[in-house]
Amino acid sequence: MDRKNVAVMLFDDVEVLDFAGPYEVFSRVRTVPGGPSRWNDDSAPFYVFTVAKTAAPIKAIGGLQVTPDFGFDDVPNIDLLVVPGGLGARHLVDDPATIDWIKSVSATAEETTSVCTGSLLLAKAGLLAKRRATTHWGALELLATIDPSVTVDPDSRFVDDVIVTSAGVSAGIDMAFHVVEKHCGADVANDTARYIDYPRP
Amino acid sequence: MDRKNVAVMLFDDVEVLDFAGPYEVFSRVRTVPGGPSRWNDDSAPFYVFTVAKTAAPIKAIGGLQVTPDFGFDDVPNIDLLVVPGGLGARHLVDDPATIDWIKSVSATAEETTSVCTGSLLLAKAGLLAKRRATTHWGALELLATIDPSVTVDPDSRFVDDVIVTSAGVSAGIDMAFHVVEKHCGADVANDTARYIDYPRP
Repeated sequence: MDRKNVAVMLFDDVEVLDFAGPYEVFSRVRTVPGGPSRWNDDSAPFYVFTVAKTAAPIKAIGGLQVTPDFGFDDVPNIDLLVVPGGLGARHLVDDPATIDWIKSVSATAEETTSVCTGSLLLAKAGLLAKRRATTHWGALELLATIDPSVTVDPDSRFVDDVIVTSAGVSAGIDMAFHVVEKHCGADVANDTARYIDYPRP
Repeated sequence: MDRKNVAVMLFDDVEVLDFAGPYEVFSRVRTVPGGPSRWNDDSAPFYVFTVAKTAAPIKAIGGLQVTPDFGFDDVPNIDLLVVPGGLGARHLVDDPATIDWIKSVSATAEETTSVCTGSLLLAKAGLLAKRRATTHWGALELLATIDPSVTVDPDSRFVDDVIVTSAGVSAGIDMAFHVVEKHCGADVANDTARYIDYPRP
């Protein structure tokens, strides 16, 4: 099976559910429905891994210790990029190495996505210029400040305007299912939702 | 503030959202509502940490690399225990050291909770005897097999019968909010849900 590579970005003070929600969804998709197909990767259409500036351990919000699979410099080709948010994302807006990396990955990725305040990084990278986008309710004004050409949508769980952005934290789960549905169809997305007992809104 | 210690158990092949959902909820609770109170721990009623048999790194399902904060032998006092599920939980049913540890922690904890197939471990420890309980839809029969005195509830997101068990994966988020509401009240639980943009069912 021709798998797509899904890179979930990590950094210090990333919000746990911002990265763990999409990680869970993409890593549990199987094209064969039901429970037993999840016991191996035979029908997994996505290969999910984590990536950070370096592969050194990071501390997520709350202190959760996660070790990235790859650093920016040695990461495999990325088909789908997930940029989560959290307090750390607000700091990375001013980190040119991170912003440049996101821009260069996005240039060749099939999908660039964000969760919560991850959209601030996409905006800073110029990826949301003249597009509709969303973010956590506490960062809507900041998003518009970073790029005034963005049409900020305060009401949607996620917005797909070439680049896919999500509202706060748990909305990243809905965004991930949307992307799964785009790439694998509604049946596969809904079977995955059933597997993780998630009532899609 | 007198914080309660929340221990989230980890093991190889733990389901990511099983542990990350409750970790997110408990670690983002603040008794002061709104966004800025989440920028520090001043009004955090819970101190959340991870614990595994040893503090050596584990690989969750999908390969996520997480390093536990504590091992069984050096963990602080536990007020609330969260036992997640996943393929690894099915193996640990036959690991006396894990079952005995859960039993001894539960004897003094205020709350013993599980997500998904984590309830199989609680059942094996005898904690669900003659109680109502639930688990992932794919493990309902197995739960009844491990302890035939359990009244298995196939329809609820979570069941609170002294011990609190959840249905599959994402239901752990609802279970965590239930426990937050029990200990901190509905206003604090709902403010936390709003912070993580989670529509409680």
